[in-house]
Amino acid sequence: MHITKMHGLGNDFIVIEERVADPAGLARGLCRRRLSVGADGLLLVEPSGCADVKMRIINADGSEAEMCGNGVRCFARYVYDRGIVKTPDMAIETLAGVVRPRLVVENGEVAAVRVDMGVPSFAAGDIPVLADDPLDFEVCGQRAASVLCGVPHTLVPAGDLETADVDGLGPRIEKDPLFPRGTNVNFVRLIDRHTAHMRTWERGAGRTLACGTGATGCAAILHKKGLAANEVDMHVEAGILHIELAQDGRAFMTGAAAYVFEGETV
Amino acid sequence: MHITKMHGLGNDFIVIEERVADPAGLARGLCRRRLSVGADGLLLVEPSGCADVKMRIINADGSEAEMCGNGVRCFARYVYDRGIVKTPDMAIETLAGVVRPRLVVENGEVAAVRVDMGVPSFAAGDIPVLADDPLDFEVCGQRAASVLCGVPHTLVPAGDLETADVDGLGPRIEKDPLFPRGTNVNFVRLIDRHTAHMRTWERGAGRTLACGTGATGCAAILHKKGLAANEVDMHVEAGILHIELAQDGRAFMTGAAAYVFEGETV
Repeated sequence: MHITKMHGLGNDFIVIEERVADPAGLARGLCRRRLSVGADGLLLVEPSGCADVKMRIINADGSEAEMCGNGVRCFARYVYDRGIVKTPDMAIETLAGVVRPRLVVENGEVAAVRVDMGVPSFAAGDIPVLADDPLDFEVCGQRAASVLCGVPHTLVPAGDLETADVDGLGPRIEKDPLFPRGTNVNFVRLIDRHTAHMRTWERGAGRTLACGTGATGCAAILHKKGLAANEVDMHVEAGILHIELAQDGRAFMTGAAAYVFEGETV
Repeated sequence: MHITKMHGLGNDFIVIEERVADPAGLARGLCRRRLSVGADGLLLVEPSGCADVKMRIINADGSEAEMCGNGVRCFARYVYDRGIVKTPDMAIETLAGVVRPRLVVENGEVAAVRVDMGVPSFAAGDIPVLADDPLDFEVCGQRAASVLCGVPHTLVPAGDLETADVDGLGPRIEKDPLFPRGTNVNFVRLIDRHTAHMRTWERGAGRTLACGTGATGCAAILHKKGLAANEVDMHVEAGILHIELAQDGRAFMTGAAAYVFEGETV
């Protein structure tokens, strides 16, 4: 089977065009690290009746995901480079609806992909968080602010990311009773109004190299609190995610999508 | 660059025939999981002046390893299948000297590879272990036996591998002052005289899917103590390693070497 390995800031995927009879079984087989190709999931290219192309995301455990910001950047680049979709503005059908990424093409090469991340919500009931002011409360002895950006995200200011206790505080805040559905935890150091550095502890996944919804949610919090401009470069462990916050509340995330190899499985 | 991904019971390698200018830099780049191909190391195919072929092992951190039991099985299968070496008995030059694996060929296909693991030593000074009887002493409240098989190995009997405290006892025994150079820790459940199940905590690496020297060392201990025959199937997490103990003290390990994919890096 022909496979293409790609990653979006360290969130890695196997892209497959061939029709697959058992996607869950294939994902569980191919995604095993060490024993097989290794990846966070499969991205299956399928025809769509309502968009330019359809993306299916099959997680490493065989479950199907609705959407994934890092995955859709890889997918958009792939279908453009293969001529499956011929325009840099495209409509991709996903289980979460039609997503409209835009490719940033420089000198004929896809340099980055911009994805509409929807409207982050600061309402305590949406996030959900049991705090009077979701933009300023205390948890585990830390000042914090929360937002719903696809999933619940909490920002904790950090003076120094090298010494921030991500592995210690992360899981404690994730499971604090203030968050009925848990929360992702982002340790953020604001550099200036257009730049912040961050490290994320993901709910259920632990420390990861890059979290697209976290970068978007934190930029939205910083902008809402008047600390950052409406365009912010969020420096995550594996690179930079550029976040734009539009007047109508929508957030857009621009980031890289990289090829690793083309292969034939044995 | 053309690459072949292989693994020996979950110990995974990228085999490269092309001449490489900077092996350390290439290994550090390609071996990163998530951001690149991902592997424990590179196996470089080079010409030899004193054997059929030369194998170089470059670890993921760029350092060069002398030898690796799981790696040499993959390498032997590769050079045979490509016609680089045309006989199933071969001599491979390594930094640890010339290694002589033998391919087990069934119906024209390489089913397994048998590797000479040398002579395990039970001498306290060789291992080293500060115990009067290396084959029966106590450490961290556990009965234990130790052996030198390339590296120090300690066997701890376990009634049930599902509940054995590998992650807790492993690092404690590894660093116990009884072992001046540390030790790998193997939790072993003897099923019958020809079968044992084991889980290994590797010194400096933690829990791994398969440890060839550990399987060999533990079979040697079991045989030396009269508990096992001179041929034992050691069931590790990722499969089975068949160990033969010869009259002269030498140990031979037979195990699988599997292909994952052929690829071209981008």
